[in-house]
Amino acid sequence: MEAANDPACGFPLQNLPYCVFAGDDGRPRVGAGIGKSVLDLRQCKGAGLLEGLPTAIQAACEARTLNMLMGCAAEDNGALRGRLMDLLGAEADEATRDAVSSALTPMEAAVLLKPVESANYTDFYASIHHATRVGRLFRPENPLLPNYKHVPIGYHGRASSLVVSGTAVRRPRGQTKPTEPGGVPSFGPTRFLDYEVEAGLYVAKGNRLGEPIGIDRAGSHIFGISLLNDWSARDIQSWENQPLGPFLGKSFATSVSPWVVPMAALAPFRVPAQGRPPKDPKPLGYLWDGADQSAGAIDLTVEAWLLTAALRAAGLAPHRLSRANLRELWWTPAQLVAHHASNGCNLLPGDLLATGTVSGREDATAGCLLELTCGGEQPILLENGETRSGLEDGDEVILRGFCRREGLPEITLGECRGMVAAAI
Amino acid sequence: MEAANDPACGFPLQNLPYCVFAGDDGRPRVGAGIGKSVLDLRQCKGAGLLEGLPTAIQAACEARTLNMLMGCAAEDNGALRGRLMDLLGAEADEATRDAVSSALTPMEAAVLLKPVESANYTDFYASIHHATRVGRLFRPENPLLPNYKHVPIGYHGRASSLVVSGTAVRRPRGQTKPTEPGGVPSFGPTRFLDYEVEAGLYVAKGNRLGEPIGIDRAGSHIFGISLLNDWSARDIQSWENQPLGPFLGKSFATSVSPWVVPMAALAPFRVPAQGRPPKDPKPLGYLWDGADQSAGAIDLTVEAWLLTAALRAAGLAPHRLSRANLRELWWTPAQLVAHHASNGCNLLPGDLLATGTVSGREDATAGCLLELTCGGEQPILLENGETRSGLEDGDEVILRGFCRREGLPEITLGECRGMVAAAI
Repeated sequence: MEAANDPACGFPLQNLPYCVFAGDDGRPRVGAGIGKSVLDLRQCKGAGLLEGLPTAIQAACEARTLNMLMGCAAEDNGALRGRLMDLLGAEADEATRDAVSSALTPMEAAVLLKPVESANYTDFYASIHHATRVGRLFRPENPLLPNYKHVPIGYHGRASSLVVSGTAVRRPRGQTKPTEPGGVPSFGPTRFLDYEVEAGLYVAKGNRLGEPIGIDRAGSHIFGISLLNDWSARDIQSWENQPLGPFLGKSFATSVSPWVVPMAALAPFRVPAQGRPPKDPKPLGYLWDGADQSAGAIDLTVEAWLLTAALRAAGLAPHRLSRANLRELWWTPAQLVAHHASNGCNLLPGDLLATGTVSGREDATAGCLLELTCGGEQPILLENGETRSGLEDGDEVILRGFCRREGLPEITLGECRGMVAAAI
Repeated sequence: MEAANDPACGFPLQNLPYCVFAGDDGRPRVGAGIGKSVLDLRQCKGAGLLEGLPTAIQAACEARTLNMLMGCAAEDNGALRGRLMDLLGAEADEATRDAVSSALTPMEAAVLLKPVESANYTDFYASIHHATRVGRLFRPENPLLPNYKHVPIGYHGRASSLVVSGTAVRRPRGQTKPTEPGGVPSFGPTRFLDYEVEAGLYVAKGNRLGEPIGIDRAGSHIFGISLLNDWSARDIQSWENQPLGPFLGKSFATSVSPWVVPMAALAPFRVPAQGRPPKDPKPLGYLWDGADQSAGAIDLTVEAWLLTAALRAAGLAPHRLSRANLRELWWTPAQLVAHHASNGCNLLPGDLLATGTVSGREDATAGCLLELTCGGEQPILLENGETRSGLEDGDEVILRGFCRREGLPEITLGECRGMVAAAI
């Protein structure tokens, strides 16, 4: 595990993110990322390397998605993580090392698949900076709605069109607003295709219908985290949006990254909730927990990069669109979970809760083109002279996420990529 | 099948709705309703009564939900329906009659289960009368938004909290608006619990991501229809609703009826689209099909009834809250499907598309208390002197749906019931 000792590789022993990859037989297999390799957990199970672990965990390592793993008890998942660390650690004996080695596949050769079949996908709106900047486009005098600071805003997203990183995203067609009031709308390929940088939280154990999850236990219902690109057709969205919110402007595709980083890997990067300034009123009791306030946020940097067809053809590097940090969100992950279940709504293992666009206070932190271009009015300029207000066919959006701190190995979320394909 | 010949029983040979019921072994079984009985399709398969039918259909009759049946080819489903008619018809020979008889369970003794595991649930807003009456509460001068007549409005609902008729619905808790601007919101049991009368359309064959469904083929992607109660906490909904639409005000429970009536059973009740007066402009081409306009609506009556604890205790009958008809919807079922897939969103077999509240033009047709009570301001009066603006604990809402026409046997959708349980 040489590479695992490289503090900058992103996949050290302290990370061990889960994935699903295509085995030589084409069959999906549960894996764990270590250094520059993927450890095949099905093969580990077959080689007896997981012996002694709870039956449910061993079965989950032979599943075709991570859902079963997510539904296992937290302590059982802790035991698996501990075992993987032992297997991959410096203390492992030679026989173990040999067995482990034969279960490793080079990461660059592995075909990573959609890791989870999320039965339900919820998209929140947890960045007050995003909400404010978007609100300013429509209500300059009063950008933030009165409910924002009190109630975590969210909506149900479309689960069927969740796709894994690398899947092409076809430019959707749809209805857009008439050019004049009272006129006839038009139908065609979107003229304002956008991305949104988000993090996705996967639910571990769920709750029964009718039984809320207390804020003090809410964090333990989160299994891990991924990157998520909430592709958005702004012109379709703005015409259909009232009164019931986003629908076809979002449901054509949502990309998720292939790695699910367990929350345990993020423990050293949990920080005080910083989104809500002390001067603002505390949230209501069902969202308030001292421990969550002092260590419930995540110091996780997310970036968006754009690789256009022209940049690619010229062999140029992608253009960085933004860099922001999850610690600036108004709500912590635990608050999102507690709120979601507060009405008794049942969360299921593998359900996906996205943060909403992660934007910071500075303009260079804005996590979508709607913000970066002021509603498309101020196109951004790329290094090669190209400009963009919306995404064009052939554009590839690359999201990256990582935790970095002096003295600690880097923890990466990997990448979430998607290239825009022409409309049908 | 004496009862099947009673033209008013609702379950004649021309209906044959599917269901899932608990067998003697407790195992879910696919069934079909006939007269006052449920025909056990697993047992029919075991008895060889389905021999010669396509393998996929025979397997679907042994499944634990209707999803597999919904995913089968339309012609194969047609073959199953034809076979069931033969088995139950007057021409069946004595051996067949005996075998069929032993596969019948009295309907009143059958425990009906949730028939479908819908991976995705979408709720539309297809009644212009509902949209107008609700809009009037908030925008008296301009009740209908400019997009309404052009774009089918809908939102993604929560799939995990779909429950079958008969499941108690716990009063949800949630955040509600501060009593004065700038004040602090409160959290507690909803004070305005409402129901919504809807019909639910189950998707048959789906479409691949990125590939729309043409309006001319859209109707063939609908397997069947059920009743649906979109329980709503109006005070929670109105506080959280902006800018992303309904969320926790709806996601605590959505009830579906146990019977899925195949579209084939509704063929005699298909009528011209009547929701859109001829003076209004035609919809855009992707929503316009001559055949759909001339026979795409459904002449189906839906009713809501209320049985309060006091009415129940006094042995009194439920109070009829409303009666409306699906033919008055602004959009046909095919238009909802074509719109949903127009951006390439992939629909899956068993996905549930609800119409939204079915209300007509007259006040007595309004399909929810929000409309019937003018936003809670004008409580309704029941026969026993009770009044209601919102639902109270112990209230049971009963939805019924049926197609009736002189000279044809009645086709029923059965009932969708739910009783309100006290908040946790």
